[in-house]
Amino acid sequence: MGACDTVPPMNGAEALVRTLVQSGVEICLTNPGTSELHFVAALDRVPGMRPVLGLFEGVAAGAADGYSRMAGKPATTLLHLGPGLGNALANLHNARKARSPVVNLVGDHALSHAAYDAPLSSDVAAIAAPVSSWVRRCEDRAELAADGAEAVAAAHGPPGQVATLIVPADVAWSEGPGPAAPRPPRLPPAPDPEAVRACAAALREEPAALLLSGPALRREGLARANAAASATGAKLFCDTFNARLERGAGVPPITPLPYFPEPALEALAGLRHLVLVGTQSPVAFFAYPERPSELAPPGCVVHVLAEPGADANAALEALCDELGAGPPPPAVAEEARPARPSGKLGPRSIGASLGALLPEGAIVSDECITAAAGIFPQTRGAAPHDWLFLTGGSIGQGMPLATGAALACPDRKVVCLEGDGSGMYTLQSLWTQAREGLDVTSIVFANRSYAILAVELARLGVTEPGPRARSVLSVEDPELDWVALSRGMGVPARRASTAEEFHAALETALAEPGPQLVEAVY
Amino acid sequence: MGACDTVPPMNGAEALVRTLVQSGVEICLTNPGTSELHFVAALDRVPGMRPVLGLFEGVAAGAADGYSRMAGKPATTLLHLGPGLGNALANLHNARKARSPVVNLVGDHALSHAAYDAPLSSDVAAIAAPVSSWVRRCEDRAELAADGAEAVAAAHGPPGQVATLIVPADVAWSEGPGPAAPRPPRLPPAPDPEAVRACAAALREEPAALLLSGPALRREGLARANAAASATGAKLFCDTFNARLERGAGVPPITPLPYFPEPALEALAGLRHLVLVGTQSPVAFFAYPERPSELAPPGCVVHVLAEPGADANAALEALCDELGAGPPPPAVAEEARPARPSGKLGPRSIGASLGALLPEGAIVSDECITAAAGIFPQTRGAAPHDWLFLTGGSIGQGMPLATGAALACPDRKVVCLEGDGSGMYTLQSLWTQAREGLDVTSIVFANRSYAILAVELARLGVTEPGPRARSVLSVEDPELDWVALSRGMGVPARRASTAEEFHAALETALAEPGPQLVEAVY
Repeated sequence: MGACDTVPPMNGAEALVRTLVQSGVEICLTNPGTSELHFVAALDRVPGMRPVLGLFEGVAAGAADGYSRMAGKPATTLLHLGPGLGNALANLHNARKARSPVVNLVGDHALSHAAYDAPLSSDVAAIAAPVSSWVRRCEDRAELAADGAEAVAAAHGPPGQVATLIVPADVAWSEGPGPAAPRPPRLPPAPDPEAVRACAAALREEPAALLLSGPALRREGLARANAAASATGAKLFCDTFNARLERGAGVPPITPLPYFPEPALEALAGLRHLVLVGTQSPVAFFAYPERPSELAPPGCVVHVLAEPGADANAALEALCDELGAGPPPPAVAEEARPARPSGKLGPRSIGASLGALLPEGAIVSDECITAAAGIFPQTRGAAPHDWLFLTGGSIGQGMPLATGAALACPDRKVVCLEGDGSGMYTLQSLWTQAREGLDVTSIVFANRSYAILAVELARLGVTEPGPRARSVLSVEDPELDWVALSRGMGVPARRASTAEEFHAALETALAEPGPQLVEAVY
Repeated sequence: MGACDTVPPMNGAEALVRTLVQSGVEICLTNPGTSELHFVAALDRVPGMRPVLGLFEGVAAGAADGYSRMAGKPATTLLHLGPGLGNALANLHNARKARSPVVNLVGDHALSHAAYDAPLSSDVAAIAAPVSSWVRRCEDRAELAADGAEAVAAAHGPPGQVATLIVPADVAWSEGPGPAAPRPPRLPPAPDPEAVRACAAALREEPAALLLSGPALRREGLARANAAASATGAKLFCDTFNARLERGAGVPPITPLPYFPEPALEALAGLRHLVLVGTQSPVAFFAYPERPSELAPPGCVVHVLAEPGADANAALEALCDELGAGPPPPAVAEEARPARPSGKLGPRSIGASLGALLPEGAIVSDECITAAAGIFPQTRGAAPHDWLFLTGGSIGQGMPLATGAALACPDRKVVCLEGDGSGMYTLQSLWTQAREGLDVTSIVFANRSYAILAVELARLGVTEPGPRARSVLSVEDPELDWVALSRGMGVPARRASTAEEFHAALETALAEPGPQLVEAVY
């Protein structure tokens, strides 16, 4: 209560912003409206909270996710009632699947106005629920700041989650008791010695495999997982799509499970034991007629070393101790930079350029979908970097995520690998990159189609789609001009249509400090 | 059952598409994914359903709304699981508030896959509920086609509503009993003679007013409402934001209630009776400290002549009979074309150009927010046209709505009045306009700001916002280049920065048959 004695009277919005800052939240990704203007006004009275405008809420939500993945702590969004939250929903879905800590502040009509069916009225809590692990609508001005502190704690987890605090306008504009004290973060549960022993025993019974995701996919966890695998002969996989994977020359390697069920089933075929670290038992991305959903073979026993949110690194350390695997071995990816490519432009040549040119400490936001097969292997031996995946399958994540990663890590180069179809979902990100001077180089894979859908349609037996099917799977007619789109939002851009042109364009773009875009037409 | 004997075996997706076509649905606004590919494949086997691709689901949803407003019957969307529906949510909110008939088909994971927490898993029905008056998740292949027929009937209303049918992939790919018979549309309830008498008596007791919205805002309803008003001396208003308003030279006039509560309260001050036709009792758009939410003055008796969904024209006819108002009088707006403007460009000069140049039968999609005050009055005496408003307050409606209106009315010119801030929400619409060759002229009001928010902030007493508040209310730094953005999506564009330039640019754009864009910088 001491703090209340020393601060002048303030409204709920200001008390909440002060509470968030004291809880370690430093950035607010926003597109506000009338019901959030008390927060906007408070931003100029409270030091320590950086507002960043997105010209669409999908940008704000995806940037909050990207920031949180790299900063390891929550960003907040500030969104305008149900529709503003609705616009953020797809990237909040991705953030939820990434287990990223994100705090949403969503304005709502004043409590006194809620009974009337005004045009912007909607059930904000109902819209929030499917993407949020924690939802609260504050109806008591005395509780607003404390609710904010609790939202931050909820977002931290562990594991990280999406926490949504809905603030009616009159709760924000009314005077309340001032800021609330931050909530201490919860500690992850310690490893369960019995689970450690059981997992060690399972790994010794070949054929076995480890499957990792979450915070174990950093250098330390990867080293221990590699040690456990090499001590037992177990295979080592990570999920197909992960929030953040450290990789490159000098980093202990790991293999993502393939996307399609057939090669994924093949990768896991014959396993007797599967040990999970920070993830769930593996399932196919989509169901297909006559195909199983579960990827572990029938009869394979699935063991949990660490649930998502447990201390995976401590669990892996305990596992190595149990296995007598000693200190992590020096099994690391070797430096291997592809030769400068020439000739036809395509995912393979782009992968070669990227493998050769990726700077040390780069952060890659990967939403190039079908092109990834040509890119990912060729960057295995590149300078060490972080790889951020499309975690929830909802396209339109790549550019916002890159934006947020650049906000979190201003000293690192961010490279965004973006499909032309996916990129169009949240292209407004480029404007935020220009405004904030973010060090992001975007590569747009202009294959003029939702290429993954042509593959999926062929899997249904439709190898020669008719004109109507073709029309909804292609993004040609008219062709998108990404150079014009990018420049229209203030980001310098160039086009490449041969491997040589692309290599030179990427080299030039990476050498510049601010946002750049290269359209790769193939 | 007869139909089942004569059609070859077909999967649920095809049976559903055939059912929709037989129910009168002709257009499918879509951005499909893997779980919807069985529908995509069916489009080539079923004649009569035109697929139109949007490069973002907000475009598809807003276009479905615009189509439905003009065609008076449902369009269908086809959306990809929870995130695809999430991207459509804001414009579905607007469609719900417009009482537009819209059918959403949303794919979902196969029932067999639902138990696994795959990356794209989400609670689709929960996401649909806040924007849908009818939601069904079909879990029985035998019911899919019948559910489709019911969805169309539900969307028709009256009043029109958003109906969402969720289709698990295995329900779509399994063989079922074939198409279902269309459901006959429900008829609107006939006028209640007692309510008619009560409203007539109320209108005779001055001061009184009529407040209209919905289908009464067409020439026929407006004529009767004007007759009733002039027979009684009652004032005549429509809602601030309406799905569709017929107006212009020769059309009986009506005055929308002002947006801000103070002038709206003034317009209704002193009323003893307010008669509602197809709308609700008027409320402020937002609540403000010390301001009432209800706009009708205390003590004013509110009467309902026709609920939304009732036969408003029949009710107005009965009202005129009761009042002895005779045949509708010739009270119509006079032709009045503003003079060609010159000098400084701004909403007033743009309004003058528009009033002078708007072609007969034009459809105006209005999302120019603060600029409307300069535009709307000056088009009162223009050639007769339809005006489509932002019904739910969720920005990003204008361009998609224009797209859908042009799909519904290929022989009419569509003019889209678009704020630069609002336009960035769903700018992908321009690509669909280019692909489909739609006759839409977009005017972008490039004032480089969310101007309405500066007004609202001033209403809070913040007349000189600090740098952080300013940064989130402006869309400058960098400036958007709408000409580049438009051309990047295949729509010819030009920029104007004086009244003369704008007038010439608009004249040229309107003379062209396909999509055009004019960026008005002021």
